[in-house]
Amino acid sequence: MVNVVVNGIGTIGKRVAEAVKKQDDMTLYGVSDVSAGQGLRTGLSPEGGFHGTDLYASNSEGKEQLEEDEMHVEGLLEDVLDEVDVVVDCTPPGIDKSNKENLYRPHGVKAIFQGGAPDDIAEVKFNADANYSEAVGEDFVKVVSCNTTSLSRTMSAVDEAFGVDEATANLVRRAGDIPQDGRGPVNSTIPVTEVPSHHGPDVQAVMPDLDIKTLAVKVPVTYGHVHMVTVELENEASEEDVLEAFRDQPRVNIESAGEGFDSTAKLHEKMRDLGRKRSDMPEAAVWEETVTVDDGTLYWIHMVHQESIVVPDSVDAIRAMFELESKEASIEKTNDSLGIE
Amino acid sequence: MVNVVVNGIGTIGKRVAEAVKKQDDMTLYGVSDVSAGQGLRTGLSPEGGFHGTDLYASNSEGKEQLEEDEMHVEGLLEDVLDEVDVVVDCTPPGIDKSNKENLYRPHGVKAIFQGGAPDDIAEVKFNADANYSEAVGEDFVKVVSCNTTSLSRTMSAVDEAFGVDEATANLVRRAGDIPQDGRGPVNSTIPVTEVPSHHGPDVQAVMPDLDIKTLAVKVPVTYGHVHMVTVELENEASEEDVLEAFRDQPRVNIESAGEGFDSTAKLHEKMRDLGRKRSDMPEAAVWEETVTVDDGTLYWIHMVHQESIVVPDSVDAIRAMFELESKEASIEKTNDSLGIE
Amino acid sequence: MVNVVVNGIGTIGKRVAEAVKKQDDMTLYGVSDVSAGQGLRTGLSPEGGFHGTDLYASNSEGKEQLEEDEMHVEGLLEDVLDEVDVVVDCTPPGIDKSNKENLYRPHGVKAIFQGGAPDDIAEVKFNADANYSEAVGEDFVKVVSCNTTSLSRTMSAVDEAFGVDEATANLVRRAGDIPQDGRGPVNSTIPVTEVPSHHGPDVQAVMPDLDIKTLAVKVPVTYGHVHMVTVELENEASEEDVLEAFRDQPRVNIESAGEGFDSTAKLHEKMRDLGRKRSDMPEAAVWEETVTVDDGTLYWIHMVHQESIVVPDSVDAIRAMFELESKEASIEKTNDSLGIE
Amino acid sequence: MVNVVVNGIGTIGKRVAEAVKKQDDMTLYGVSDVSAGQGLRTGLSPEGGFHGTDLYASNSEGKEQLEEDEMHVEGLLEDVLDEVDVVVDCTPPGIDKSNKENLYRPHGVKAIFQGGAPDDIAEVKFNADANYSEAVGEDFVKVVSCNTTSLSRTMSAVDEAFGVDEATANLVRRAGDIPQDGRGPVNSTIPVTEVPSHHGPDVQAVMPDLDIKTLAVKVPVTYGHVHMVTVELENEASEEDVLEAFRDQPRVNIESAGEGFDSTAKLHEKMRDLGRKRSDMPEAAVWEETVTVDDGTLYWIHMVHQESIVVPDSVDAIRAMFELESKEASIEKTNDSLGIE
Repeated sequence: MVNVVVNGIGTIGKRVAEAVKKQDDMTLYGVSDVSAGQGLRTGLSPEGGFHGTDLYASNSEGKEQLEEDEMHVEGLLEDVLDEVDVVVDCTPPGIDKSNKENLYRPHGVKAIFQGGAPDDIAEVKFNADANYSEAVGEDFVKVVSCNTTSLSRTMSAVDEAFGVDEATANLVRRAGDIPQDGRGPVNSTIPVTEVPSHHGPDVQAVMPDLDIKTLAVKVPVTYGHVHMVTVELENEASEEDVLEAFRDQPRVNIESAGEGFDSTAKLHEKMRDLGRKRSDMPEAAVWEETVTVDDGTLYWIHMVHQESIVVPDSVDAIRAMFELESKEASIEKTNDSLGIE
Repeated sequence: MVNVVVNGIGTIGKRVAEAVKKQDDMTLYGVSDVSAGQGLRTGLSPEGGFHGTDLYASNSEGKEQLEEDEMHVEGLLEDVLDEVDVVVDCTPPGIDKSNKENLYRPHGVKAIFQGGAPDDIAEVKFNADANYSEAVGEDFVKVVSCNTTSLSRTMSAVDEAFGVDEATANLVRRAGDIPQDGRGPVNSTIPVTEVPSHHGPDVQAVMPDLDIKTLAVKVPVTYGHVHMVTVELENEASEEDVLEAFRDQPRVNIESAGEGFDSTAKLHEKMRDLGRKRSDMPEAAVWEETVTVDDGTLYWIHMVHQESIVVPDSVDAIRAMFELESKEASIEKTNDSLGIE
Repeated sequence: MVNVVVNGIGTIGKRVAEAVKKQDDMTLYGVSDVSAGQGLRTGLSPEGGFHGTDLYASNSEGKEQLEEDEMHVEGLLEDVLDEVDVVVDCTPPGIDKSNKENLYRPHGVKAIFQGGAPDDIAEVKFNADANYSEAVGEDFVKVVSCNTTSLSRTMSAVDEAFGVDEATANLVRRAGDIPQDGRGPVNSTIPVTEVPSHHGPDVQAVMPDLDIKTLAVKVPVTYGHVHMVTVELENEASEEDVLEAFRDQPRVNIESAGEGFDSTAKLHEKMRDLGRKRSDMPEAAVWEETVTVDDGTLYWIHMVHQESIVVPDSVDAIRAMFELESKEASIEKTNDSLGIE
Repeated sequence: MVNVVVNGIGTIGKRVAEAVKKQDDMTLYGVSDVSAGQGLRTGLSPEGGFHGTDLYASNSEGKEQLEEDEMHVEGLLEDVLDEVDVVVDCTPPGIDKSNKENLYRPHGVKAIFQGGAPDDIAEVKFNADANYSEAVGEDFVKVVSCNTTSLSRTMSAVDEAFGVDEATANLVRRAGDIPQDGRGPVNSTIPVTEVPSHHGPDVQAVMPDLDIKTLAVKVPVTYGHVHMVTVELENEASEEDVLEAFRDQPRVNIESAGEGFDSTAKLHEKMRDLGRKRSDMPEAAVWEETVTVDDGTLYWIHMVHQESIVVPDSVDAIRAMFELESKEASIEKTNDSLGIE
């Protein structure tokens, strides 16, 4: 059993902690943080998703703060790292780099970083569907960001089946997550002036040969990014062929606007009706009606649930790094445990 | 065991069906509708909340539509009503009245109606905390609307403890529920020009002696109404006294802005972290810091989750009508089954 | 002097009426409608933008309704059409077609239609910058929609200067105009399932040789659509070259995010500070920082004020149809009168 | 002619500068700031509202910054204060207090402060309708905030006509102004946990005998606060009496939902159609249909345009301090110049 600590219990961290706890080939050894945010507090409470898990402090000041916040702290993360096999680091950008150099590397513990971490934090940028094998045996792996994950899943499916000559993917970002209600914009669309936007180069870290062009804007919604994608195909494909390729992808859902799932909010409601915890949707969701092939050009629009889409990949990264399972077996185990069909 | 059918599987109906299924003193005999909306479809699917429940058609046209929608229909609701003890009618306003006259009364089956139904549909307007006993033995009961339910719970707690001389309660309504994204307003506040707004008279149907004045506006949010309440107290009370009275109320939560739950979105996130299905919050949530007593005037602000707050009361109404349990016992049973502490 | 009637005083109609009134080579003979909406009522009031203009009824029922609305009606539009040279028809889709066949053609009066009209309503689809000359002498002209207008202006500038090999333009639509606050979505992004979205083919009606691919989504904002555009250039160009080509376009503004105009709302505020009536922005606004050339690919993001962008083109269409001025002279006259620099 | 400087050219400052420029009994001697925000930049540009006005720096660092921003600076505000009669200080809270002590008082120049300034900055809290005479001859006056201004206008009208025994006024705040799109909330309602909210005590600074209770929440809109008001009347009044009292108030508008002005957005559109600069609405707008009298209780809902409502009062404050006109004459002059009927 691989001993896992999740360091940084925010939006991603709390979800990864719960996901690790559900696996039968790894143990959630502990969670670690520097203060008691609501995710940590509720997660450790009797109704919470990782109740009973030991809480560690990521550093000494953090220990003091946690104790001031009236949390029971087992001790410093550093003091138990020798019993830990891998840390999933979900701390804010900047902290992750320092953790790697000062904590994980000196103690010889493997680590997985999230999409916000600097690119040079790990040689392997990871997406389970696109490049599982590259993480095998690695000590440090970066799971790519939510948007890059969705593009990697969908693009790799299309690329493997029909070849992608070139692609354009334009992103409509959510303003903030549901509880981040101090962030704008209210009634405004904000262009991302970094051009091309970072998710283009990021997906190339996973699929180096992909010719992809990306732009992005931010809008006043809280649940879900949306991508508008255009692809020049290398080989002929019908719309049904493409839908089939997406259906074969274990973490891409085809959703029908015609059956009522015609917006991000309607998909949110579907996740609620399915009883998904937090109404999360770790799958990328492609709207069926938008999948169109016209004279060699493939179009589609898909949605990304920014809070949860990287959670299964974070679990798979652990299996790859410790060579616990093959790609297919790991994806299946993770999907089963999280209710992904 | 009381045999229950839920007729009309929309926002409220799908929740009531799932809640009834969780009780050990009643049976979800079936659900009934006239077409296959997403709530019905997902609820009956293997991952859904009332999978395995028999589906009936509320009328002949509905049977045809459901079959066209490729649903398996057991038959017409009317044909099995003799085996049913009570129907929880969650159909749209207008239909409910016709159902009562043409279906439930002729077959001698009891029925519970929701807040949108006309007032004269049932003599008893019901809120479990405020007037459970009035529904005992009744054939027809109307559970009051979400806003009225929240006011009944909080006002009855204050009135019983300290006496309410007069009250003002102003409502900030949500635009639509999460999936009702075709509804506005976007970037606008809409005054309700019916003055006083209906929830004032409505709460008087439950608490006839209450002197309450109400106004309302609608704003661009999807999760939760908010009430701003001012009460002139008959007897002295400290803020701590009032908080104590609210804490004693089994379906009122005290939430602390200072601990991070400082908005409707932050409470939404708390329900997500707690793993509540659909991130529902059937409790009325009073913000602790807003509970203020100043020279005999009591102030508070509370939040109402419009989709779920009436669900426990609908279950209690069944117990009252069949004299299954006392008020306290029913509330406790319902709360336990729904995870309300 | 060309006698102009504006028929249909809604979002576009009220602006065109005011714009026509400001020209020195045409006369606003009258406005026409079938009921007294707020735009009509306020526009004819002493503080309004076309006070003193004669009001006609577009049909007999409309005359009754207008009189019921207590408006002073000069008579039926049909009865004065012989004195009218051109009608700018801003009526809802469907009505426009019927007006053409039953009113304008029988009376031999020219007409201009708006973007929502069916494509076969006029042979010439018009954008002043892209194809002014095609409208010369025509009897019926359709001014293309707001999004198509913005693409025609920017694409024609790039195409004339450097050649466009192929283009992708993805649109982020506003939910509704400022007063259309009954329309959603609230907190949701809605994909347009018509693929490619209509503005691709529409711009090809103006620029027949353009290879353009388009997708669209709708988001909860009220002031401004946004386009994310990628173009493969035929000839080399630097970013400065492209900015120069845009600056030379008389109805494209370059706006700097770095100077504080970093969103649609900030541009809205700029129009307010400039004292533009209704804070309108008839120019397409390209964000300077997004104009990027990378290995033959040109990127940019621009904003479209949906309510006003087609107003100057509607005025120019009149001049073209009556051969009043050359393209350059007409654009300059219209721009001067509307405060477009 | 009174020489006026406006110090701090933000949301309020830019409007006050333009308003002062329109008066015939005062001169806009200059504007002053510490950096070149967009309001300042656009206002001084050829198309701007105070083009040609001299620009001063509020302090030495500000001078450097303004010059770095490539603005032409006449000099330091301090160096010309001897030629200035009054400064309208629209600087951020904190700066205003320091300006009073270090700039205005030492130079013997009068000053007017805005609603965000500390209460002890001036003895007189000013609203033209409610207490014009108190500012006569004063050296320092604070114009009360936008919400307090709206309550002062409406409450003083009702109090003078019928007597106010007690009042409840609950506020639904906008998230941020149109260009403040970095501020939330998106899809959330935020209770103000300060109880009673400050606008209750603030209106008492203007109307000391008023018994008023206030609560507030914040919602995702940008144009306009809304107040829900309940008043116990001392003397009998019909709804028509109350409407008449409001109509007699020179800065309160009665707006009809039934005529189409049924939301804050529809009133925004009305201001646009009227050609008001920036679509400002300095009047408080009471929705006619909400004015209701029921058994001695008066209800109404009104809207406040937060950016512009205090502008006319700032101008009137100058006249009162220099005894230029009587209350009625000043209000009429200001209203005429600003297009307020």
